[in-house]
Amino acid sequence: MPEKILDDISHRRYNPLRGTWLLVSPHRTKRPWQGQQEAASKITLPEYDPSCYLCPGNKRAQGDLNPQYKSTFVFVNDYSAVKEEQAEYKQQGDPNDLSNLLLRADPVTGKCYVITFSPSHNLTLADLTPNEILPVIQTWTQIYTAHLSPKSPLAAVSKPSTIAPASNSISAPNAQYRWMQIFENKGAAMGCSNPHPHGQIWTTTGLPEEPSQELEQLKKYRREHNGKSLLGDYAKLEMEKKERIVFQNTSFLVVCPWWAIWPFEVMIISKEHKRALVDLDDGEKLDFAEAIAEVTRRYDNLFETSFPYSSGIHQAPLEGTDEEIEASHFHMHFYPPLLRSATVRKFLVGYELMAEPQRDITPEQAAARLRDCGGELYRKHLK
Amino acid sequence: MPEKILDDISHRRYNPLRGTWLLVSPHRTKRPWQGQQEAASKITLPEYDPSCYLCPGNKRAQGDLNPQYKSTFVFVNDYSAVKEEQAEYKQQGDPNDLSNLLLRADPVTGKCYVITFSPSHNLTLADLTPNEILPVIQTWTQIYTAHLSPKSPLAAVSKPSTIAPASNSISAPNAQYRWMQIFENKGAAMGCSNPHPHGQIWTTTGLPEEPSQELEQLKKYRREHNGKSLLGDYAKLEMEKKERIVFQNTSFLVVCPWWAIWPFEVMIISKEHKRALVDLDDGEKLDFAEAIAEVTRRYDNLFETSFPYSSGIHQAPLEGTDEEIEASHFHMHFYPPLLRSATVRKFLVGYELMAEPQRDITPEQAAARLRDCGGELYRKHLK
Ligand SMILES: O=P(O)(O)O[C@H]1O[C@H](CO)[C@@H](O)[C@H](O)[C@H]1O
Ligand SMILES: O=P(O)(O)O[C@H]1O[C@H](CO)[C@@H](O)[C@H](O)[C@H]1O
Repeated sequence: MPEKILDDISHRRYNPLRGTWLLVSPHRTKRPWQGQQEAASKITLPEYDPSCYLCPGNKRAQGDLNPQYKSTFVFVNDYSAVKEEQAEYKQQGDPNDLSNLLLRADPVTGKCYVITFSPSHNLTLADLTPNEILPVIQTWTQIYTAHLSPKSPLAAVSKPSTIAPASNSISAPNAQYRWMQIFENKGAAMGCSNPHPHGQIWTTTGLPEEPSQELEQLKKYRREHNGKSLLGDYAKLEMEKKERIVFQNTSFLVVCPWWAIWPFEVMIISKEHKRALVDLDDGEKLDFAEAIAEVTRRYDNLFETSFPYSSGIHQAPLEGTDEEIEASHFHMHFYPPLLRSATVRKFLVGYELMAEPQRDITPEQAAARLRDCGGELYRKHLK
Repeated sequence: MPEKILDDISHRRYNPLRGTWLLVSPHRTKRPWQGQQEAASKITLPEYDPSCYLCPGNKRAQGDLNPQYKSTFVFVNDYSAVKEEQAEYKQQGDPNDLSNLLLRADPVTGKCYVITFSPSHNLTLADLTPNEILPVIQTWTQIYTAHLSPKSPLAAVSKPSTIAPASNSISAPNAQYRWMQIFENKGAAMGCSNPHPHGQIWTTTGLPEEPSQELEQLKKYRREHNGKSLLGDYAKLEMEKKERIVFQNTSFLVVCPWWAIWPFEVMIISKEHKRALVDLDDGEKLDFAEAIAEVTRRYDNLFETSFPYSSGIHQAPLEGTDEEIEASHFHMHFYPPLLRSATVRKFLVGYELMAEPQRDITPEQAAARLRDCGGELYRKHLK
């Protein structure tokens, strides 16, 4: 490939999904590391922890009791970042006053959920089979559906759930929210304060920065390319090039994107144009579960550790224009911090925060390593 | 103040300098923390460490010897992220090909310097007096001046340095670079691998994302407000409001900006319109040194620890249009991760990376706490 030279020279790559650039310095990995070491993760957790606020049957922060759940369980976050009800606020005075231009604030309401992935305290997504991950995807779909605007074209396609409701705390909101962010912080290095396998869902009246930036780019591409999807075209291109693929099945492609910032960043992209979870049929949901299983197991195998990451799903807004909803293309990001080993991470700090993200290995090198560490979970026989 | 209610409700604030929003959830600090604890910093370092590659007289990674320097010392980074010379690269084929649109790369050349702030291994900027910080500012100015485009209107105002050149490695570059990023990563939590007080300077052919985004906003404001400076107006507004001020002297204002993301983020803004380091006279440089001393000492006093942060200077590009140079407004950002104590930090992870930055205490609360911890460095009498 003519781009082989990019393994050796400093260059910038363009991220068409955000419309931003990053700096790639492939030779930099040769630099010795004498800085902070992460604590290696412990794999000796009990299956049930009486002090864990997520284990079945235990008491939570505000006194509620968890049921004896069997797969997933959902509740409203006891320390929600946004709430359904709060005091009213409206900025005073003329919106063109200097003070209102330079000190601008808008109120935000919304709802925050926690979702457990398994009743077992000592498992992670990497330990689960696609069939065991499927209920997580079904529950995400239930929650997304419950919050979807009745006016959205997606409301028409969403079918009644095939599983029992994960919890009676999933209820139609008081107000119509604009965006639902499904995400997971895994591992202490990514700010996770409880190892019990779980994710979060924050739903807000406003469209946050990241999805808003992606949506602008997706709409622009669609307008300029006869209604085609940027991520659909990108997935096809990656399937031809075969340089950044980690895994694929019928419905999903897993790549280290051309524009990855984090050392082993990956993206799960639906090959066909899917706008949101509700567009996936049962077979596609199982394919998505398999893609998640493949990513998380390969991560753990790479440095033989419980690999930390933050992950999140980008899909159609709960409420939006038809153009916004049609331009949305279902995908999931994984941002893992480790660079060289279970204890040496990449820091996105001074230059990255003040100037521009910078990475040390190429996405092609990262993809090759993740391709090579499929197979059984390394700790399967250690248990 | 009518905004008092913002201490209690979730809201978004707008950052006019970047044109982006962030989420503020002030009630969230009530949440208990059971996650990762940072290692408390050791204050028992030796004044000279024979194994440190920054101490005077020691050998560096590639075999060079450091001189017996007395204040600052500058050398070209032994593991530079960008280099002055590298193999040529140009993307092949039609720029409108899908492959060139979705897999876009540009080569980058440049020069990376390391600058020590003191010969003493066990000091930090917080330990230095304004007069001891002054040579650091003079050296930054020397390096900036040496790389300034001869065509820039700033080249005319830049005066010969009043101090001896910090090093003979500061040389006019082979190519005209576009941007110089001066920054510091302090502390293991911010990816710093050597406690010897030092910063970095990365200079590149391209204008990186952050300064490019700020420059767009600064130019826009200038056009729409009769040539006035966004940050000049903002500084005046903060001096009237008095709610977010941490410290000020004749030339500089230190505030927790209205739109701060990091818990104790601060910004040093020049009160008058200064475009770059070369616009500061000797008195203003000393005022700038005092502002840096005040910020770093207050940080250390806040949790009685050597406070980690990344800091960086934004000023006029080395080469640019007259409009870009006139719109630039000299300022310095400090992004510190600690939230509640010397060991509990804020993690900008899942929601922040996938959706939008989120903060837990208001900038007004942060400013009040930093205002209250001036005075002597807490460890002054412990030594
Ligand atoms: O150059 P250093 O200090 O070794 O490295 C540090 O700063 C760089 C610039 O912000 C980052 O890219 C690195 O991840 C960080 O560890
Ligand atoms: O809600 P948690 O898991 O307690 O908190 C974690 O995730 C949040 C959302 O990304 C972050 O704002 C917090 O800094 C992080 O510690």
